[in-house]
Amino acid sequence: MSEPILNDISHRRFNLLRGSWVLVSPHRNKRPWQGLQESPSKTTLPEHDPECYLCPGNTRAQGQQNPKFEKTFVFVNDFSAVKEDQEEYHPERKQDNVAARLLRAEAVTGKCYVITFSPSHHLTLADMNPAQIAPIIDTWTNLYIMHLSPSSPLAELGNKLSIPPLAQDDLTKPSAQYRYMQIFENKGTTMGCSNPHPHGQIWTTTSLPEELTLEFEQLKKYRKEHQGSHLLLDYVELECREKERTVFENDLFWAGVPYWAVWPFEVMIISKQHKRALVDFDDEERKSLAQAIAEVTRRYDNLFETQFPYSMGLHQAPLDATSEEIDASHFHIHFYPPLLRSATVRKFQVGYEMLAEPQRDITPEQAAERLRACGGELYRRKM
Amino acid sequence: MSEPILNDISHRRFNLLRGSWVLVSPHRNKRPWQGLQESPSKTTLPEHDPECYLCPGNTRAQGQQNPKFEKTFVFVNDFSAVKEDQEEYHPERKQDNVAARLLRAEAVTGKCYVITFSPSHHLTLADMNPAQIAPIIDTWTNLYIMHLSPSSPLAELGNKLSIPPLAQDDLTKPSAQYRYMQIFENKGTTMGCSNPHPHGQIWTTTSLPEELTLEFEQLKKYRKEHQGSHLLLDYVELECREKERTVFENDLFWAGVPYWAVWPFEVMIISKQHKRALVDFDDEERKSLAQAIAEVTRRYDNLFETQFPYSMGLHQAPLDATSEEIDASHFHIHFYPPLLRSATVRKFQVGYEMLAEPQRDITPEQAAERLRACGGELYRRKM
Ligand SMILES: O=P(O)(O)O[C@H]1O[C@H](CO)[C@@H](O)[C@H](O)[C@H]1O
Ligand SMILES: O=P(O)(O)O[C@H]1O[C@H](CO)[C@@H](O)[C@H](O)[C@H]1O
Repeated sequence: MSEPILNDISHRRFNLLRGSWVLVSPHRNKRPWQGLQESPSKTTLPEHDPECYLCPGNTRAQGQQNPKFEKTFVFVNDFSAVKEDQEEYHPERKQDNVAARLLRAEAVTGKCYVITFSPSHHLTLADMNPAQIAPIIDTWTNLYIMHLSPSSPLAELGNKLSIPPLAQDDLTKPSAQYRYMQIFENKGTTMGCSNPHPHGQIWTTTSLPEELTLEFEQLKKYRKEHQGSHLLLDYVELECREKERTVFENDLFWAGVPYWAVWPFEVMIISKQHKRALVDFDDEERKSLAQAIAEVTRRYDNLFETQFPYSMGLHQAPLDATSEEIDASHFHIHFYPPLLRSATVRKFQVGYEMLAEPQRDITPEQAAERLRACGGELYRRKM
Repeated sequence: MSEPILNDISHRRFNLLRGSWVLVSPHRNKRPWQGLQESPSKTTLPEHDPECYLCPGNTRAQGQQNPKFEKTFVFVNDFSAVKEDQEEYHPERKQDNVAARLLRAEAVTGKCYVITFSPSHHLTLADMNPAQIAPIIDTWTNLYIMHLSPSSPLAELGNKLSIPPLAQDDLTKPSAQYRYMQIFENKGTTMGCSNPHPHGQIWTTTSLPEELTLEFEQLKKYRKEHQGSHLLLDYVELECREKERTVFENDLFWAGVPYWAVWPFEVMIISKQHKRALVDFDDEERKSLAQAIAEVTRRYDNLFETQFPYSMGLHQAPLDATSEEIDASHFHIHFYPPLLRSATVRKFQVGYEMLAEPQRDITPEQAAERLRACGGELYRRKM
């Protein structure tokens, strides 16, 4: 490690991307664990589950029938957090001045989708090879294009991409122009996921969400302070040189544990070139991304020989953005996994973490070393 | 509700205290839950557990024996996240300029304590009456005084308080002046708590933690923009008038679900007068605080007739602070409880929440109404 002292002392690290600190207590990993144990996840699922509302041909909560899809399938979430239509809200009509100042609210509309990753009920990203992951990236890209503001400089690129079109004609353009599209996946019951059928979600909103607001502030600030250079480009270059936090890299992507990781085995996948959004990737580059995702998720499962729970999501240019925001955007993926020491012992971000500051025990360098070491075939396949 | 439309539409609310947004989706509470169920907590604990390292007279991890304490007992955490002594770290000696800019770290030292709330293994704050909770507040106050910077304007107040002294002579003054003391409690296995014996923690650090930094920024900004008035004082006055988010109030404290609550039944206890820290409370006021804590925790348990899990913590003036910070400080307590619909169904802040923006289903007003309605005797005592 380039600063070995950080393996031994308590310290804070600064998250350049969101402008916040995390407390690192390397020595604390030794404490005995008497608390909650997660139940190891079931690994013997059928390929098709007649009870699953995401399997091909099955019926969903409100009576619609899924088609016999072959790769991915997208539908509007039956329990969307935001909707396209709702009564209008006029916060400016508040009578009371003090209330108007202290009780601030604004309406949010948008559209939420569910996207299945495969017709097979028992697969996860970790089980899939890059060729099987590629169609998921294609679908994400298609949906992103479909929601892009026509006035965005990215919109034209979308039209030119040679990408297999969405094999669904039931998806219609949104009724309004939304600001941001958050593509994400919750995996495992520990991460609030209620169905093991491989799937992700996409929430599209009129507002730029909080985390993105923080990131764009830092990204724009860095550009201003450093003659137009890109924070994540500089960062990824440094990481490729230092190597100690690298988990995997290929031509276009670096995957590693960020210097300021909060979760024990947190990983970021960052583009090595300045790519603003999914539409900036050509065929080959989307394949590289599929490979990076395959490498990270397989290593996760190999680490504790379990179905490794996580939340992951893509950060990229807003759908409707200023050109300053589009220039500052730099495509990356965050993986936030809770497990700490085994398939059953997780890290809790509670108490001190909620009230004061996120805290981690093992260092990011130690985490990266372990993830680097567990590449190779998926453990389940060797059994 | 003063703006009934907010019961029906998706909207965001602005957290004035930390300067961030939360997404509210009131209609979403109706979705069926097929995910993880929490295991209901055991309620039949013995009054003394020979295996418990917090019970009076028992032996701890590293061989020390607990005294036969009668009220509270404080000891230095055997697995402290920060320590008083460690090797010195000199970030300024980094050779590489880019690394110095992108990989920012700083050392943190400090002292971590555990504080038992009662000799009885089977009690929780919810089981205790205000008279039983008062000694806990006394101990918090004593520890706060013990760590206050001698140059703080609060230090003198500490000397004048008529408060029962810490009935322990083994606790020594810290070896350095620390910046902030975070007093908190994790309750329940869901909140990472590994021992049901009622206890809290106290982490004292050289740094002002992230959450406090955010709060102080907003508190100071509000004072500047509004002729020296206090954000939380104005806020609590409004809440006492509007009443719809109030859970309980007495002469000195308002307890309620903040307008911008993230967790389903999140509660804040806020002082109705400008009190900067524990040392600002006299005997009567500490009793009022004990009553507010008793009312909140008992209602929590009554709500789903279970041992309601939460993390809670005190926010107050830093130990070592500028006078601007001390003036801006306003004593309050946050309760962050995860349960949503029953003793076994929690809200997950995952996926969208981690990557984009915290999200809640029921409105704060609905949550407050339910907590208001479940006062009275503790459900367990009626069984
Ligand atoms: O110190 P404990 O009770 O062992 O541990 C618990 O509280 C700490 C402080 O909130 C957290 O850092 C840990 O993740 C949690 O498990
Ligand atoms: O939408 P789902 O899978 O039912 O629900 C899950 O993911 C959502 C988005 O991260 C969260 O808001 C929920 O708390 C979680 O349980």
